[in-house]
Amino acid sequence: MNIIFTKMHGLGNDFVVINGIDQTINLTPEQIRFMSDRQFGIGFDQLLLVEKSDVEDTDFRYRIFNSDGGEVEQCGNGARCFAHFVRNENLTDKKEIAVITKNGRLILNVEDNGNVTVDMGAPILEPAQIPFIANAGNEDKAENVQQKSYSIQINQQNIEIGAVSMGNPHAVVIVDDTQSADVEKLGKAIQESSYFPNSVNVGFMQVIDRQNIKLRVYERGVGETQACGTGACAAVVAGIVQGLLDSKVDVNLLGGNLSISWAGDTNPVMMSGPTATVFKGMISL
Amino acid sequence: MNIIFTKMHGLGNDFVVINGIDQTINLTPEQIRFMSDRQFGIGFDQLLLVEKSDVEDTDFRYRIFNSDGGEVEQCGNGARCFAHFVRNENLTDKKEIAVITKNGRLILNVEDNGNVTVDMGAPILEPAQIPFIANAGNEDKAENVQQKSYSIQINQQNIEIGAVSMGNPHAVVIVDDTQSADVEKLGKAIQESSYFPNSVNVGFMQVIDRQNIKLRVYERGVGETQACGTGACAAVVAGIVQGLLDSKVDVNLLGGNLSISWAGDTNPVMMSGPTATVFKGMISL
Repeated sequence: MNIIFTKMHGLGNDFVVINGIDQTINLTPEQIRFMSDRQFGIGFDQLLLVEKSDVEDTDFRYRIFNSDGGEVEQCGNGARCFAHFVRNENLTDKKEIAVITKNGRLILNVEDNGNVTVDMGAPILEPAQIPFIANAGNEDKAENVQQKSYSIQINQQNIEIGAVSMGNPHAVVIVDDTQSADVEKLGKAIQESSYFPNSVNVGFMQVIDRQNIKLRVYERGVGETQACGTGACAAVVAGIVQGLLDSKVDVNLLGGNLSISWAGDTNPVMMSGPTATVFKGMISL
Repeated sequence: MNIIFTKMHGLGNDFVVINGIDQTINLTPEQIRFMSDRQFGIGFDQLLLVEKSDVEDTDFRYRIFNSDGGEVEQCGNGARCFAHFVRNENLTDKKEIAVITKNGRLILNVEDNGNVTVDMGAPILEPAQIPFIANAGNEDKAENVQQKSYSIQINQQNIEIGAVSMGNPHAVVIVDDTQSADVEKLGKAIQESSYFPNSVNVGFMQVIDRQNIKLRVYERGVGETQACGTGACAAVVAGIVQGLLDSKVDVNLLGGNLSISWAGDTNPVMMSGPTATVFKGMISL
């Protein structure tokens, strides 16, 4: 089987994107694992497969596979690449693209500047739903109720965090300078603490002004990454909740910039950012 | 500029190979660095460029670039990929291919089983030329003269090593079991010791029988790798010098198998092994 593919990335989060409309694609988990290997295969964080949609009012079915071969839910950086891919391949000329994913319908907007805006859903701030146990190991403390921020004990120090779920749990620590932040040590300690029973992604946010932050993210099971889309959303939400940020914020990550906006309450977080097409290839499996 | 390339690997040591005969290729170090990035570019250990030779009795000029953009000397895994590439691209139908490289003329033999044999040059065993200081920090010990093996002091322990240069320095430690060998800790300690003024690649060799070894290599500036061609040569030479191995040995590395033969003295070490073509691609720079 010959497969034509396109290698893309969104802020260094990289994808192999396959047109499964003009090609008949049936990949086994083993084939996906092989292709994901950066020395023996093509190398990618995730594989994106574009298929015809059988659901009303949607343009495409959009499937996402991790490098271990398992099918997973949506990721903001991948959705942006997907939107550019279907336009570059002339599969659509729409600027508003409706796709059906593993977790429902998703609208992608291609902006005039080439960036793509993705609806990332509403943030979850209620501790039990994150899940976050604000009074872990200290039952004298206030109950596990929603606050603007929380003081937690890590390595005998009090650390102030925001706690947000964007479908996955995030802790957000405000720092004076992301460059000197002890991302790995503190990130690991917060992840391993009893406050987050399902572990947590830890963001280190430097507030430049009300419309600009710098952010480094230590992800669950991965370590520090170039650009975590949900991490950028969580940091901006935490900053807005604490009254530090306006409703539209530019987030400077190691891999580049994302623009995040949130109108508060149950409104969705909108994420906008660039993508790049790196090369086209053909592999025989 | 559109560049057509082929992604290949030899035991997981991976290469982007470019036909610079049918394409006009002028790459800046910056463009090579971009292409080498595994997230933002194509990703490779080295880039191989095939050019016409202007030297008598050679079929091609073969240039090698590291991921930092610098041009370097030959590498055994890359040379095997090169030989398969020029045949697959129909640039030659010869089975014995003569190439001119940065460090001279090189003959590559494509065997009937598809493996390629590369002349890796004669090993250097004279300590000062490796460079290896056998009596570092202990002037009471014997002078720095060539021996079959050497006892060195690492972390208050006596470690027996073979010392060989294959153009680059290697220390070879014999272990009972490569799987349980403390490759990272001991490898790093030997590298940082004063015995090897230019640092050293450290091989951990398990002798299965006189024709078979298992090997793990901790490389200078890289750490443990899938398959170090010069490391396989050095280990076999060290084993032959110590009377433990025959003149032709199969070396089982993490990335696969190499066959190494050496007739002793100033004869060259011959290395034979497989290659794989992974995919073809086109990138616009």
